[in-house]
Amino acid sequence: MKKVAEQISGYTYGDAGVSPVSLQDLENLKISVGWTGEDEQYRRMAGEVLSDQTRPLVDHWRRGIIASIPNLIRHSRTPDGEPLPDYQTKSGLRFEQWVLDTCFRPYDQDWLNYQQEIALRHTSLKKNLTDGVNSTPHVPLRDIIAFIAVMNETIKPYLAAKGHTTEDVEKMHRAWTKSLQLQVALWAQPYSNAEW
Amino acid sequence: MKKVAEQISGYTYGDAGVSPVSLQDLENLKISVGWTGEDEQYRRMAGEVLSDQTRPLVDHWRRGIIASIPNLIRHSRTPDGEPLPDYQTKSGLRFEQWVLDTCFRPYDQDWLNYQQEIALRHTSLKKNLTDGVNSTPHVPLRDIIAFIAVMNETIKPYLAAKGHTTEDVEKMHRAWTKSLQLQVALWAQPYSNAEW
Repeated sequence: MKKVAEQISGYTYGDAGVSPVSLQDLENLKISVGWTGEDEQYRRMAGEVLSDQTRPLVDHWRRGIIASIPNLIRHSRTPDGEPLPDYQTKSGLRFEQWVLDTCFRPYDQDWLNYQQEIALRHTSLKKNLTDGVNSTPHVPLRDIIAFIAVMNETIKPYLAAKGHTTEDVEKMHRAWTKSLQLQVALWAQPYSNAEW
Repeated sequence: MKKVAEQISGYTYGDAGVSPVSLQDLENLKISVGWTGEDEQYRRMAGEVLSDQTRPLVDHWRRGIIASIPNLIRHSRTPDGEPLPDYQTKSGLRFEQWVLDTCFRPYDQDWLNYQQEIALRHTSLKKNLTDGVNSTPHVPLRDIIAFIAVMNETIKPYLAAKGHTTEDVEKMHRAWTKSLQLQVALWAQPYSNAEW
């Protein structure tokens, strides 16, 4: 499995708690999102294209965009607004690895379990714990859902950076956006009532 | 304001309860989603392009896609799986009108209030009430989030149907996808705990 670094602090893939979401729920969600064999193929192509660009991509999102939005950057800082460089570095590596996992990991039980771990790390149940930091207690669900649009918009030039045809870039982008919508549906689970 | 029909049963725009979401929350969400003046301009262009296509578009989503997914079509039927043609017709008109509202309505307090009404009509608090039908008690949040990806994918040919340049179609599509992400963030509110 491709990794962005030898050691990724707090990256417990394969060793996370069992998700309350079943594999059957996941299959149904893949249908709701319109996931196809072509998307499966093109998410891998996206992974090949992105694999040496995860650092600039995540920097673009975090330093280029989030850092200039006070309502978002506060979740990476102390309650007083002080930077937490070690937290930024560690969560940044996991963010990079998430890009690769989105493209390459099989969407199976281990993936589902780690999706739940990612979800919980946005909520007050697990945020700050992994890295032992003092920051905001949770990231609001609404901002997570909203920021997906930004990631979808800004990833396109990175998908086009290796000279693929417009059609291939479109198909990679389509697979990416569907996967993110699937993932944000999963991340909503711990914020939600029984009607999730 | 453009309407898809003289009479739209259950369309209480301007007369809905007050949303618990504030205009300040909405402004912050627009920032999180990356909403720009260009998006504001291009959502209107999308509206001009879509205004005589809302019927085939909604038919495409409902008859063409949802109807073939048992896990989704059940929300438009009785608990025994019987069709509810009157419910389909009424909610279909509202669905069409929602396309226009997405493109043309100012995103203000009235819009916010009706967004909350739409959200509640997906939950057991208000589903079935408006049309007095006996159907599933709620639509799971995860399927609403997931189906956004399908609407985003399939709307593109409709945006391209009036001969606009590829660049204009892209910009209309970008505004559309950002608006939908903003809206689904709002629709998640009544499903969510205080960390919404």
